[in-house]
Amino acid sequence: MLSGRIDDRNGGFLARWLYDAGFDHSRTVVVGDELGAVTEVVHGLLSDGIDLVVTSGGLGVTHDDLTMEAVAASVGGRLELREDVLVQVRAAMVGAPNRDRVSARIQEAGMRKQAMLPIGAVALAPVGTAPGCILHTPSGQTVVVLPGPPGELQRMWEQAVRTPPLVDLLAGIRPHSLRVLRIFGVIESQLVELLDDLPGEPTKGLRLGICARAGELEVTITALDAAGEASSQRLVEEIGCRFGDSLFSADTATLDEIVATALSAAGQTVAVAESCTGGLLGARMTAQAGSSQWFTGGVISYANSVKESLLGVPLELIERDGAVSSLCAEAMAEGARHAVGADWALAITGVAGPGGGTPDKPVGLVYIACAGRRGTTAREFRFRGNREQIRERAVAHALQMLRIAVTESDIDTGAAGS
Amino acid sequence: MLSGRIDDRNGGFLARWLYDAGFDHSRTVVVGDELGAVTEVVHGLLSDGIDLVVTSGGLGVTHDDLTMEAVAASVGGRLELREDVLVQVRAAMVGAPNRDRVSARIQEAGMRKQAMLPIGAVALAPVGTAPGCILHTPSGQTVVVLPGPPGELQRMWEQAVRTPPLVDLLAGIRPHSLRVLRIFGVIESQLVELLDDLPGEPTKGLRLGICARAGELEVTITALDAAGEASSQRLVEEIGCRFGDSLFSADTATLDEIVATALSAAGQTVAVAESCTGGLLGARMTAQAGSSQWFTGGVISYANSVKESLLGVPLELIERDGAVSSLCAEAMAEGARHAVGADWALAITGVAGPGGGTPDKPVGLVYIACAGRRGTTAREFRFRGNREQIRERAVAHALQMLRIAVTESDIDTGAAGS
Repeated sequence: MLSGRIDDRNGGFLARWLYDAGFDHSRTVVVGDELGAVTEVVHGLLSDGIDLVVTSGGLGVTHDDLTMEAVAASVGGRLELREDVLVQVRAAMVGAPNRDRVSARIQEAGMRKQAMLPIGAVALAPVGTAPGCILHTPSGQTVVVLPGPPGELQRMWEQAVRTPPLVDLLAGIRPHSLRVLRIFGVIESQLVELLDDLPGEPTKGLRLGICARAGELEVTITALDAAGEASSQRLVEEIGCRFGDSLFSADTATLDEIVATALSAAGQTVAVAESCTGGLLGARMTAQAGSSQWFTGGVISYANSVKESLLGVPLELIERDGAVSSLCAEAMAEGARHAVGADWALAITGVAGPGGGTPDKPVGLVYIACAGRRGTTAREFRFRGNREQIRERAVAHALQMLRIAVTESDIDTGAAGS
Repeated sequence: MLSGRIDDRNGGFLARWLYDAGFDHSRTVVVGDELGAVTEVVHGLLSDGIDLVVTSGGLGVTHDDLTMEAVAASVGGRLELREDVLVQVRAAMVGAPNRDRVSARIQEAGMRKQAMLPIGAVALAPVGTAPGCILHTPSGQTVVVLPGPPGELQRMWEQAVRTPPLVDLLAGIRPHSLRVLRIFGVIESQLVELLDDLPGEPTKGLRLGICARAGELEVTITALDAAGEASSQRLVEEIGCRFGDSLFSADTATLDEIVATALSAAGQTVAVAESCTGGLLGARMTAQAGSSQWFTGGVISYANSVKESLLGVPLELIERDGAVSSLCAEAMAEGARHAVGADWALAITGVAGPGGGTPDKPVGLVYIACAGRRGTTAREFRFRGNREQIRERAVAHALQMLRIAVTESDIDTGAAGS
């Protein structure tokens, strides 16, 4: 990750997986593609007594792909050509795109480079073209070497956790007793106040993590011992008691999963009409596999002419109230519900900035509407932050409006899907 | 970032900024919200002789916001209440959303907590509600403490780089002599072959970074000395010579910026029709400020009925060739160009997986079409990877098709925008 030109998308995945499995996450280190630096970091972590070190990236064919060498060096070892691995790499290369663009000699050198593993390592078969490995160090620690592309890493990780010696290490760990609560529309200080109001030591035996993002508060409660189990139970109850209406998930399900499950269960569908978010809401919904069951489509009505032509928003309405208005959001939602065809429709229109704001309609002003068979509701929001944050917050709040609408309609009508 | 439940979006921003400014990026460390762990990491980095340590996050009002305390402890210092900072925090709280939800006592305690800075630190005024600081250590090193939300961090960083002692540290650094080349449709091994073919020491005095993602190869060439300057110049020329048609950026401009600039310069607009990407292409285009100049909107035609009703794709075509077909992509693009109204239109239809694949139309099969005033072209792609990667690759390739189409039309017609 030289010069920070790409973001780390693997650290979060691995840290979360391992924390849930019962490991205490010590740290994630992002380091440049230099042999000395990578070696020093891996060696330093092992010297600190870390039980498990997982690396990602640096397994390709170019000169700066040197993770295998660094891992070997960090335990004072070196690499060897593994004929068994070379066979796997050759097989993986057969399907690789564009391999014919380089000469056979360069191809052969690349494959031989990728078949070099630390002496004594257990090989992990390539998911793309690069193999990984698991190294059991002389001092009984474990190093897992994985490729950099997130999709490849995640699939090889599934392989790694079933492979000795990692499978044995995992078997010896007791999973954390972990609760994850998601609360919508509650600010951090309200949680501070709740803790402050509780008598005794409400966090005794607990590790408590609080993370605020896009209007959602995620509370991670880990019980460290028997006292912690009691504290955890009590805290979950207290939060449910005080923030019951706002607590929308107590079983690790995300907002996206809850919306998908509710729509699927009700046999209902949703469409979108997006102005300032430009497709972000649709992209987030369809990021979930199987979303075609409940998502039909949408209109990105960035220009006002599209709001009129495809969504049927009257031009007079836009001229009178503006495209960023409650009435326009409602008309967009209703237009999408009919034009796209769905039980529900969400519409977002606002000023994402940095330009385009006026005293009347400042940057951050967003209207979100939710249309259903029983009518349409719109809400006004004034979001803080930059363009990216305003767009993400708008999308999160739209999903919350849909979650509430679908859930309430479910209660009102009895089981809508039955 | 306890238990890895959120991704680090700040490390990349800071590493990139600092590398471009001339710093050698040592490492990015992600650590849980525990006083001992954070203190140990900051202390460890300072002990290693790192000139500049930047922290992000942990400046809120809850018990796990302890970065200020950890930074003070890492240099053997402690915190003091800063009355000048308390005034700023009070002012920032006036506009904070939902502050009225907690009692005055809890509010006051939160503000006083946030006004505690390491003794001797230079304060950075709050962007949200939390102040940051710059600490000059006794050994002449610099620690900058910034908030966690990316938007806040970036705006406070702009403030920090103009503030002593950081402004002085930056003034003493010579920026890296850095070239960034972006190449499309070239694989890493082809670059290995180019380096292999060059006589002498083609990378003498260079630090070379090669990063492949979504069909794009990003080559970062840093000259470390005078020999490196010569090597850099030569390597840029050689890459231009061998991969001229594929080299689309040699001045750090990204694909997104190039497309935006080309459309703006030509006074032209684009629309989208998205099936498997569900809005991701529109979202990426409109992530750029000012995109309303050249992006009009689009249709997310996830369900086949939407392809027919809003894009006018004949139902017979879908029944005969399938929704995932070259002809359907072409019809979607032409439909979007007319229905949405734009000079250009891009359409994407494919199988993103993990389900929905057949022997004929496997997961990863994607058709992308680009329609313009002189006709429509479609291409077939077979992407590897998981759902997220397939969708991202499809979006990147669609943008590349548009870039090529707009650039070529520009050459053919003379200056289209003049």
